[in-house]
Amino acid sequence: MRLSRYFLPVLKETPADAQIVSHRLMLRAGMIKQTSAGIYSWLPLGFKVLRKIENIVHDEQIKAGHIPMQMPTLQSADLWRESGRYDGYGQEMLRMKDRHDRDMLFSPTAEELFTDVFRSYVRSYKDLPLTLYQIQWKFRDEVRPRFGVMRGREFYMKDGYNFDLTKEDALHAYNRHLVSYLRTYERMGLQAIPMRADSGPIGGDDTHEFLVLADTGESEVFYDAEITDLTFGDREIDFADKEQCQAVLEEFTSRYARTDETHDEAVYNEIPEERRRVARGIEVGQIFYFGTKYSEAMGATVQDADGNKVPVHMGSHGIGVSRLLGAIIEASHDENGIIWPEGVTPFHVGIVNLKQGDEETDGACESLYAELVAAGFEPLYDDRKERAGAKFATMDLIGLPWRITIGPRGLKNGVVELTSRRTGESEELSPEAAVQKIKEIYAKHPDPKGL
Amino acid sequence: MRLSRYFLPVLKETPADAQIVSHRLMLRAGMIKQTSAGIYSWLPLGFKVLRKIENIVHDEQIKAGHIPMQMPTLQSADLWRESGRYDGYGQEMLRMKDRHDRDMLFSPTAEELFTDVFRSYVRSYKDLPLTLYQIQWKFRDEVRPRFGVMRGREFYMKDGYNFDLTKEDALHAYNRHLVSYLRTYERMGLQAIPMRADSGPIGGDDTHEFLVLADTGESEVFYDAEITDLTFGDREIDFADKEQCQAVLEEFTSRYARTDETHDEAVYNEIPEERRRVARGIEVGQIFYFGTKYSEAMGATVQDADGNKVPVHMGSHGIGVSRLLGAIIEASHDENGIIWPEGVTPFHVGIVNLKQGDEETDGACESLYAELVAAGFEPLYDDRKERAGAKFATMDLIGLPWRITIGPRGLKNGVVELTSRRTGESEELSPEAAVQKIKEIYAKHPDPKGL
Repeated sequence: MRLSRYFLPVLKETPADAQIVSHRLMLRAGMIKQTSAGIYSWLPLGFKVLRKIENIVHDEQIKAGHIPMQMPTLQSADLWRESGRYDGYGQEMLRMKDRHDRDMLFSPTAEELFTDVFRSYVRSYKDLPLTLYQIQWKFRDEVRPRFGVMRGREFYMKDGYNFDLTKEDALHAYNRHLVSYLRTYERMGLQAIPMRADSGPIGGDDTHEFLVLADTGESEVFYDAEITDLTFGDREIDFADKEQCQAVLEEFTSRYARTDETHDEAVYNEIPEERRRVARGIEVGQIFYFGTKYSEAMGATVQDADGNKVPVHMGSHGIGVSRLLGAIIEASHDENGIIWPEGVTPFHVGIVNLKQGDEETDGACESLYAELVAAGFEPLYDDRKERAGAKFATMDLIGLPWRITIGPRGLKNGVVELTSRRTGESEELSPEAAVQKIKEIYAKHPDPKGL
Repeated sequence: MRLSRYFLPVLKETPADAQIVSHRLMLRAGMIKQTSAGIYSWLPLGFKVLRKIENIVHDEQIKAGHIPMQMPTLQSADLWRESGRYDGYGQEMLRMKDRHDRDMLFSPTAEELFTDVFRSYVRSYKDLPLTLYQIQWKFRDEVRPRFGVMRGREFYMKDGYNFDLTKEDALHAYNRHLVSYLRTYERMGLQAIPMRADSGPIGGDDTHEFLVLADTGESEVFYDAEITDLTFGDREIDFADKEQCQAVLEEFTSRYARTDETHDEAVYNEIPEERRRVARGIEVGQIFYFGTKYSEAMGATVQDADGNKVPVHMGSHGIGVSRLLGAIIEASHDENGIIWPEGVTPFHVGIVNLKQGDEETDGACESLYAELVAAGFEPLYDDRKERAGAKFATMDLIGLPWRITIGPRGLKNGVVELTSRRTGESEELSPEAAVQKIKEIYAKHPDPKGL
């Protein structure tokens, strides 16, 4: 993409009403625009990252054997009356009447609809295990939406639902989700720690939240420092293997890590003092096992091997897709702007032309651009007639992890400059070597395939 | 995908309330499930096709130089009051109040929001031309939703908006859209004819609808038979070239083709009698040029080269993404089910195992499956313990364009059977040759890259 033909409305001023850094940077980098309280338009740069994150979530869910589909945003109130949640949900549920005066609502979550799909079609234990999921817009009418996309009213969320014959199978589904979430967050350059959580209004026995450590997090968290040494890495995993998945659960949840809601001072104090940590965290996902709560209320049963009708064991599992943009920025920025991890960057590399209009420099930029595109990358080429300082400031603000700078002085020596956004370190190398380096970097961060 | 692990709830009975064939087939093939009147859940198979169509639309819009972003589904009523449409839009607009008693609505279209984004950031003619678009869920509260996804209430739509300095530039944007739409529909295996249309409530001077000929179409159409000989094909086009785009417009709109709304009997009768056609058509897209209607009402101006503030010339351009599934099925099915064009098929090829449980046959199916996956395809392998007839019926119903049948008898001679869903013709060939043939077929129908 050539910047002169893109729509990237960066702001020079720091928006006054944005209280946290990710909100400020998303506004300044031209990623989002508020249209009403807690409701945002996703401008091209923001939408590009949103979609990339969505595609990573799809990739990892599909690898785990979970099946994508999509529910409508608007639902009839009837199903929610059946589960007993319509009256209980409170003012966060946005309700409306259609032209025929029927009660409708904007889905804040979708246990009821997925349970209804299940009970409409599935009759036998032989069709289990089954995990269905969607990534879809949700709405929760927060009293005080704030922090940009971190606590918006309209938000994009992955929500998955497992249907299993037994509690044991459902806990395997729980573990599959835990593993797939660990992989998902790491691929986005995030460390998200599973912490024992409170089940809240959905209700349930087993539940973990995934929290990214950040000073601006809404939750206070307490953990054993050893937990931050754990990474899933690129180990192989067979999602069908119960023992393998259980072992990962144990590895990642055996050390103390809780939010203030479930914090237990006595247990915490058993950690050796030098390993005790108190910090703040941003919730980016949650997994629940809630047994037969919905299947009993809504009659989601199957015939088991003995011919008995039994309610299925369920769980629901969510990732805050739009919220992740905020979380990633909170965890990865500096005073000049965003620093995208390679896995989610909207463009792989920026090209800065130091002397726009100079025939040789323009030619070198064009040929580098063409080579990067031919190699399967999306470069963002700043081809505007701006001074170098303004171009660098824009690139730093929008946070592309790598920048190639091309000017007449370097070209005389046959070199361009490759700069890391994270470290600020630069090296001079030939254009061919720069392309080769970009290839090596992104070989470890393949673009999501998505759907 | 192995069918035993997929969620494909096909129905044996023909749903009684579905009046048209695409609605019946989408229900029977387990693609959609109605959740309320005119509101559907997209089951895995339906969602897969929806996403593929969405990705084709993205591919072709990006090639045309248009920039993707995304608006929220819910909007404040304020912008619609500014444009004057809030009171005029009528009962099709779904309105609601949030917890702070503010008037909100579910976006039926997004001229106001895009115009607001434009006026918030763009100041100079130098930032033009600019075309922004989204693919997002919309809602229109139809009195009598019917025909499945063809006339639903919640629907998925691509809507694009061009912002140009002059009428001439805006008409070039109009032409770019026309060209990109022709390419989009052809890539989906559809012939969609641009027909002079009525501008309706959006208002405007120049507008064409794209109609797919089908007996079940909602509009009566009148056209010169010569128009159905036109194809865009794989010709090269430079979307920045005004003359090239104008020539395509002229080629595809110079022959008579109108809906009943704009039909002119006198002009029609000038067509030689043997070329006059009356038929029915399904609208799958529309392009509009409406000049400065919204930019004047909402103050979307730029400074021109002389320093004068002038309102921009705009148009809006839509493709009915969810409706396209219905239109494609109406245009491509037989008595046994759907016949997907290669460009949009949910799986590239079906594999039918005639003797599930037989070691040699199972092994041959597994190895063919692995080879197809390695070659980048998505096969659907029917690995259920069902008799051959049931497996064939399912494959025919869900409409994969190619099927490979593997049984012990063929394997004795080293062959499998490759069958075209469209023609019903089969040929016996070695498994390697079958994979090679699939490669050749899909070389002409590359999967969309999407976003």
